[in-house]
Amino acid sequence: MLASFLEASLSLLQGGSKMEINILAGGPLELIPSLHSYSGEWIGVDRGVLTLIKEGIFVEKAFGDFDSVEKEELAFIMKDVGELLTFPPEKDETDMEIAISWAIKQAPEKIRIFGATGGRLDHFFANIQLLFKPTALHETVPIEIIDCQNIISLIQAGTHTIERNDEYAYISFIPFHGEVEGLTLVGFKYPLTLRHIPIHSTLCISNELISDIGTISFSEGILMVIRSRD
Amino acid sequence: MLASFLEASLSLLQGGSKMEINILAGGPLELIPSLHSYSGEWIGVDRGVLTLIKEGIFVEKAFGDFDSVEKEELAFIMKDVGELLTFPPEKDETDMEIAISWAIKQAPEKIRIFGATGGRLDHFFANIQLLFKPTALHETVPIEIIDCQNIISLIQAGTHTIERNDEYAYISFIPFHGEVEGLTLVGFKYPLTLRHIPIHSTLCISNELISDIGTISFSEGILMVIRSRD
Repeated sequence: MLASFLEASLSLLQGGSKMEINILAGGPLELIPSLHSYSGEWIGVDRGVLTLIKEGIFVEKAFGDFDSVEKEELAFIMKDVGELLTFPPEKDETDMEIAISWAIKQAPEKIRIFGATGGRLDHFFANIQLLFKPTALHETVPIEIIDCQNIISLIQAGTHTIERNDEYAYISFIPFHGEVEGLTLVGFKYPLTLRHIPIHSTLCISNELISDIGTISFSEGILMVIRSRD
Repeated sequence: MLASFLEASLSLLQGGSKMEINILAGGPLELIPSLHSYSGEWIGVDRGVLTLIKEGIFVEKAFGDFDSVEKEELAFIMKDVGELLTFPPEKDETDMEIAISWAIKQAPEKIRIFGATGGRLDHFFANIQLLFKPTALHETVPIEIIDCQNIISLIQAGTHTIERNDEYAYISFIPFHGEVEGLTLVGFKYPLTLRHIPIHSTLCISNELISDIGTISFSEGILMVIRSRD
């Protein structure tokens, strides 16, 4: 009772803001932006756990079969993380899938995924596919895959506002699942009104926000949003 | 008359084999495998033209608005390529789209695309989308996007054989457009029989051929095939 009162008070002191969860996977290190500039809890997946420990970032939870990690490294991991959850390598779900499901259940304000691009593109596409299920189920937690040149998210039909981000100035829209109907872009360099976007279209690549806040709306489909920089 | 006779004879001398077309785009250089190990004609897109010239490879055709290329570099390009085709930057099609359409019209045996992965992922996804149209139209030219860790292609419903390639040992299958029905994999470490693959599935990631030749068949959908290595 006292504990939950204290927790509630602490939450109020923090402005009532919900937690942010950051997940680091084992993708190429050169594509990962500076992790220290992101607030929130950190979760490691497979080799990503080691990277977090080396960066001096506390790992709340580590997910993985750790088949790509040496024995001594595993001992190092076990000593340093909050909780270690290992699974056999030949299971149906990927470790990233398990980590994302866990993170969504915590109902955070936002989930950021790093180390999920580059290298083996089967892993990259698998990671992108993992954004689909919660998006299709209208989960309200925004999930972003971030690397040093890109921020990727999926959005459901409806109206969405997007803030200008000069760090990642280009914005592209690609139909992810089926065609996209009635796409309207307001506040963009190349605005659109009720446009049908077929699946193979490259029409919405390399747009830019010209207002501080833009509006994206569409009536059908799922859209992949990529914010990028050169 | 004599010219076409000579051409026909030459074609016979070459074993009647059709040409292969390789396209190099301007993606990060560190992801491009050794270009000299691929036979066929070379086409450059935007900055890819410069890379080909620097590698001492003759550029049959150069496509691009060359907006990312310095003036002196452009002069260098104009001197060295077979044919230069420039287009205004603010057009509806990307330069890669124009290059692929041109390449398909030549009816080559195969089209390989390099420099199309990594860096800005809006460009990468745009390039992947470009494989969709010819695949959906049942074009018979196989098109592959290749980098030092991955070979990506799209295949239509039907039966396909695939040769073992120890250089890119992992094979993954991801539904690209709608769900995939009746997927059967023969000759693989993880075989499948008439399996339904939903769009967000990561079930078919990281398979491997155990026979010299495998068979992939499915009755509906379009499948992205990724051959990869660590």
